[in-house]
Amino acid sequence: MSTRIIDTANLAEALENELTATEHCGLFVVTDSNVKEMVLPRLASVLQKHKASIISFTAGEENKNLETLSQIWRKLSDNGATRKSLIINLGGGVVTDLGGFAAATFKRGIQFINIPTTVLGAVDAAVGEKTGIDFNGLKNEVGAFALPWAVMISSEPLCTLPQREIKSGFGEIVKTALITSENFYALTLSENILSDNDSLRNVMTMSVAEKQRITDEDPLEKGLRKILNFGHTAGHAFETMMMARGATVSHGEAVANGILVALILSHMLTGMSSGEIYRYRDGILRRHFSPIAFGCKDYEELTRLISHDKKNPSAGDIRFVLLESIGKPLIDIPVTVPDLHTALDIYRDLTGY
Amino acid sequence: MSTRIIDTANLAEALENELTATEHCGLFVVTDSNVKEMVLPRLASVLQKHKASIISFTAGEENKNLETLSQIWRKLSDNGATRKSLIINLGGGVVTDLGGFAAATFKRGIQFINIPTTVLGAVDAAVGEKTGIDFNGLKNEVGAFALPWAVMISSEPLCTLPQREIKSGFGEIVKTALITSENFYALTLSENILSDNDSLRNVMTMSVAEKQRITDEDPLEKGLRKILNFGHTAGHAFETMMMARGATVSHGEAVANGILVALILSHMLTGMSSGEIYRYRDGILRRHFSPIAFGCKDYEELTRLISHDKKNPSAGDIRFVLLESIGKPLIDIPVTVPDLHTALDIYRDLTGY
Repeated sequence: MSTRIIDTANLAEALENELTATEHCGLFVVTDSNVKEMVLPRLASVLQKHKASIISFTAGEENKNLETLSQIWRKLSDNGATRKSLIINLGGGVVTDLGGFAAATFKRGIQFINIPTTVLGAVDAAVGEKTGIDFNGLKNEVGAFALPWAVMISSEPLCTLPQREIKSGFGEIVKTALITSENFYALTLSENILSDNDSLRNVMTMSVAEKQRITDEDPLEKGLRKILNFGHTAGHAFETMMMARGATVSHGEAVANGILVALILSHMLTGMSSGEIYRYRDGILRRHFSPIAFGCKDYEELTRLISHDKKNPSAGDIRFVLLESIGKPLIDIPVTVPDLHTALDIYRDLTGY
Repeated sequence: MSTRIIDTANLAEALENELTATEHCGLFVVTDSNVKEMVLPRLASVLQKHKASIISFTAGEENKNLETLSQIWRKLSDNGATRKSLIINLGGGVVTDLGGFAAATFKRGIQFINIPTTVLGAVDAAVGEKTGIDFNGLKNEVGAFALPWAVMISSEPLCTLPQREIKSGFGEIVKTALITSENFYALTLSENILSDNDSLRNVMTMSVAEKQRITDEDPLEKGLRKILNFGHTAGHAFETMMMARGATVSHGEAVANGILVALILSHMLTGMSSGEIYRYRDGILRRHFSPIAFGCKDYEELTRLISHDKKNPSAGDIRFVLLESIGKPLIDIPVTVPDLHTALDIYRDLTGY
């Protein structure tokens, strides 16, 4: 079984068709306060017709926690949700992660549809089976693998996304390109990629399709699928470190910077040409993203965060996804602490523009 | 993949063999305060050798809740558990349900072994993939399907179980016998079944094997496996009603009484001979269990609880597993509220000894 990807130019109509074709007892929409205000109104008549209950929580990654999860469970329970109910997760990655986990665990699992409202949500969180919450100060520390029944990707802009949000999704698209093929990667290097809607939609669709293909081949992340973590090992550490400092760095921004660390290590350890490091820095990172500012005194914390990543088989054993060349990823490459520190040194040199 | 059932006369030795043969990074034991005191000491040297961290919580069904789950997650996180760690759930059904759910969701799932320490735990909770917690006043409202990697069943008595605990497991054994075969059921009708250790172990082993067979054929409870809910629809309602009243009724006791309701409905709706109702009442219920005392004024509450059961496709739509005859279960039989009330009337007549 695989998730159906529904590509549509008219979300309300597509949703109406889905809900009419589906048998379900009880319909619930999980969303956040921003999306509730900006996107929900245009789906209101369809949802009303199908008697949907709306469960919304305050927008923000800081609410992707146990308390919000518990509130969603309680509302499902109080409103008589059954194993045959259907949940629609309408929102960005926080909504699909949280709502997906609630659906995966309420009465041991009910069906859900994801409707991503951000570029990042579409290319990252909404496809694939990862759901979860942040816990104990760690991202996605608790969660489940659960297959969305369908993902609806709307080609009408769902909300006026700030440029920052679009970039956040773009970081994920570039990651997928780098592990997939030179051809795909070359498209992302186009100078106007973020301002040209057609080009952006093109790489977005390619990214969703590639992610779906990789996930289908390895739903439980036993092997192949690990390549999707390219750039995320250092990226998550950057994200967590900055979050702890009260600075906000978007997921895509963190990943875009994590990719540079992974490319440096790829040159050091798996034979990737050094030219790729510069091509990425100049064609992607410098053009669209800000670097992460840190110093030697932060190496210890970053190393701890990286070795704590759940992708690592044991605490203290550091592994990265690296590239042999563009489109040729290698998983589970062991990285020593001295090598990691060298890569962080080089990262700082390269981004000290 | 299927759970390995490890039958052993020497638990410490079998555990030592398992842990030596297994690659794992970090070993955690989830247990409750009773088991920690009564059973854990005899495994202490093996667990110490393998550097196990012990996570224990106060014994009791009332602690099978989100707070305890959250404490387990936090201890795993604080102690550096990774995706390659191994959890051993040592205890009764509360421990295997809670510890199994923690394992199923920590970092999106890590391996676990169940070591049931009660008859009920062995024949009910420890085998099969159901894990979960009570939530919002409802049993197992939140949870996951997760396959234990192994279940170790010890033939040495793990603790001096009170007779009440043994009976609790016996209720589940009788249920499995009724949905399996006349031969198996006939063994459970033996007068001295609970005092003859060999006979009890014999039906216990049969019960585990049958449950394993049924679960393997239908791990996600799409069809066949529903037969394991025989007696549980009314049984859970009895359990919840009594819990709300502050009276304690064991799971097995509730199920044993729920079975009588299901047998009455089987005669009314699916052609089972009425003789089976009396054979069960006299050979099982009256001999080993107390009836549940309730009156007409409780029908409404019981009906509400039954229609709220997560096995029902939608709230208000009442379905039971019933028997055509011994060993021939039928799933998803619709039961009207008047029929249910009639069955409750007959139940009261039959148990007003």
